[in-house]
Amino acid sequence: MAMNLKGYCISPDDVNDAYERIVGSVKRTPLLQSTYFNQLTSRDVYFKCEALQLTGSFKYRGATNAVLSLLSSPSDSSTGDSSPPLTVVTHSSGNHAQALALAALKHNVQAKIVMPTNAPTAKRSAVEHTYKATVIPCQPSERERTASEVMAVTECAEFIHPSEDTRVIAGQGTVGVEMVSQIEGISGPGSCLDCVIIPVGGGGLASGNIMSLKSRWPNCKVVLAEPEAADDARRSWLSKEMLGHPVVDGVKTTVNTVADGLKTELGVNTYPIVRDLADEVITVSEIDILKATKQVWERMKVLIEPSAGVGVAVLQGKEFNEKFEKEQFRKIGIVLCGGNVDVVKTAKTMEDMGI
Amino acid sequence: MAMNLKGYCISPDDVNDAYERIVGSVKRTPLLQSTYFNQLTSRDVYFKCEALQLTGSFKYRGATNAVLSLLSSPSDSSTGDSSPPLTVVTHSSGNHAQALALAALKHNVQAKIVMPTNAPTAKRSAVEHTYKATVIPCQPSERERTASEVMAVTECAEFIHPSEDTRVIAGQGTVGVEMVSQIEGISGPGSCLDCVIIPVGGGGLASGNIMSLKSRWPNCKVVLAEPEAADDARRSWLSKEMLGHPVVDGVKTTVNTVADGLKTELGVNTYPIVRDLADEVITVSEIDILKATKQVWERMKVLIEPSAGVGVAVLQGKEFNEKFEKEQFRKIGIVLCGGNVDVVKTAKTMEDMGI
Repeated sequence: MAMNLKGYCISPDDVNDAYERIVGSVKRTPLLQSTYFNQLTSRDVYFKCEALQLTGSFKYRGATNAVLSLLSSPSDSSTGDSSPPLTVVTHSSGNHAQALALAALKHNVQAKIVMPTNAPTAKRSAVEHTYKATVIPCQPSERERTASEVMAVTECAEFIHPSEDTRVIAGQGTVGVEMVSQIEGISGPGSCLDCVIIPVGGGGLASGNIMSLKSRWPNCKVVLAEPEAADDARRSWLSKEMLGHPVVDGVKTTVNTVADGLKTELGVNTYPIVRDLADEVITVSEIDILKATKQVWERMKVLIEPSAGVGVAVLQGKEFNEKFEKEQFRKIGIVLCGGNVDVVKTAKTMEDMGI
Repeated sequence: MAMNLKGYCISPDDVNDAYERIVGSVKRTPLLQSTYFNQLTSRDVYFKCEALQLTGSFKYRGATNAVLSLLSSPSDSSTGDSSPPLTVVTHSSGNHAQALALAALKHNVQAKIVMPTNAPTAKRSAVEHTYKATVIPCQPSERERTASEVMAVTECAEFIHPSEDTRVIAGQGTVGVEMVSQIEGISGPGSCLDCVIIPVGGGGLASGNIMSLKSRWPNCKVVLAEPEAADDARRSWLSKEMLGHPVVDGVKTTVNTVADGLKTELGVNTYPIVRDLADEVITVSEIDILKATKQVWERMKVLIEPSAGVGVAVLQGKEFNEKFEKEQFRKIGIVLCGGNVDVVKTAKTMEDMGI
């Protein structure tokens, strides 16, 4: 079925341009199969291992595209050699922080990362010491304000939002570009997947790859996977209204899920793409997320974070299998979005829950 | 330095033949790099991820070569269509059991696997249900006897030893064949590694890859990595005498190490290659093995088993760095041999040990 991919914050061409821009700078991650999962689901399942991407998540694609786009933009070259160095700024406690820090380091750009004081020590240490960014600590409620202050006092500074920046969204879409090429490499030109399952949080990964996949494989269903405990995309997609996490007495609810990468909400750039072009948004429980995460650890040997387990849980759940019963999907792709996880702590949670 | 690779149980040509035989049947596993480990060691470190091999370890290479060699041998084709089906037999509680079971399944050969009753339930279940082999349970002390009985009552049966079978050894050597090709792909024709670190247990992986690496890269040092708690290869290499695990009052000591894949001893086929051609055998402590295992989990997102952590521990240890100080290795390879691990249990051990 032909689909109108125009009128959104990015176009399929933006993803193609991003791919050309970053192809030599990011890792072409493996597309793995598993005898166990093929048998379990009676399908061919292809796992796109972004946990093995540089900095441990797909976020490195978007960050790299943002940095390289900046470096090639006319406003940069017109500033001349004597201008102050470019600085990218963001606020993040997680994967985007690490991704932007390394992308900046590799391309000789300064990075200032606002990190809340409750960010895990290991992540702060990676951003600061391994990836050499300047970390500005702040109170958890002061992220936006602190980032604005950093922007105000930094010359040639560019703010790179983790999921709403269009360069970031286009960069994330390159996951799908590689999947198409890898499937054709395995099964021959013209081969395609019947369905691809993608975890959704802020929606950068989801909307970027809806663009790259739907433009190449118009008949491929794109199913978004979300934790029940952070189901804003599900509710927004169903109601066709952008609904964030619930607000109680004027205060936004703090959502709590083991899939900490998916706590963020869709934004004005990512939401329209999800609303119009996602074929389904399916939620799964915490226990199913952890079970699926453990399955991937033990059967595929890839140390995914629970956010990546969300898609694997959807694949095995009742809702997915009932909704798409008549489609009889034979070949399914799943994006294993990241691997930044405290394994000892998560293993303990699994044990406590009897998984 | 030219090196005499003749007069051993296998030759470099046997490995080349094995590679031709199995290339379409086994996975070309990724050769990964890590910013973290490069910085930590001030070197370029290349990790050959056999944890991502089918059945979760390099053992699938040797098992596949054994099965395919059997199928192409004249004795098989001369038996004609009416002969009973071929059956491969082994005894194993671990990775070889799973590898042989799947290799047999994929090539329409029967497999009978003698497994001790104390083998982990998950491994027995994988062999029996995922890989569809016949499992014959036995008391742990009765493995050899039970396997002999199975051989005696099975027509067209072939015993495939996990580390002494020459077809198995040649198959394991294909890890090195791929590493050479991958390094040339990354750094250009003629490029090489200065040193490759390989874990050693029964010695199949070690001796097969000494053959493939030394025949292609005569100047590359091959360093074997072993747990202190199961140091028969170290003692044998130092004394130039084949020493198994200690015997006390006429009874062989039971060795105990988290690197359970390395508890086995060198044998008459693998020992001479290790004795003459390994450049060093270095042992590491249990705590260093677990620390290194956790580093790889968290930094590389590959769920290795502790046996694979042994090589990573050697790389960071004092002995390796002192012994090879003057060589100034720049590019080092490490074989991450497998990923079959009870992650929850191992994570708990790490926590208990304060790692």
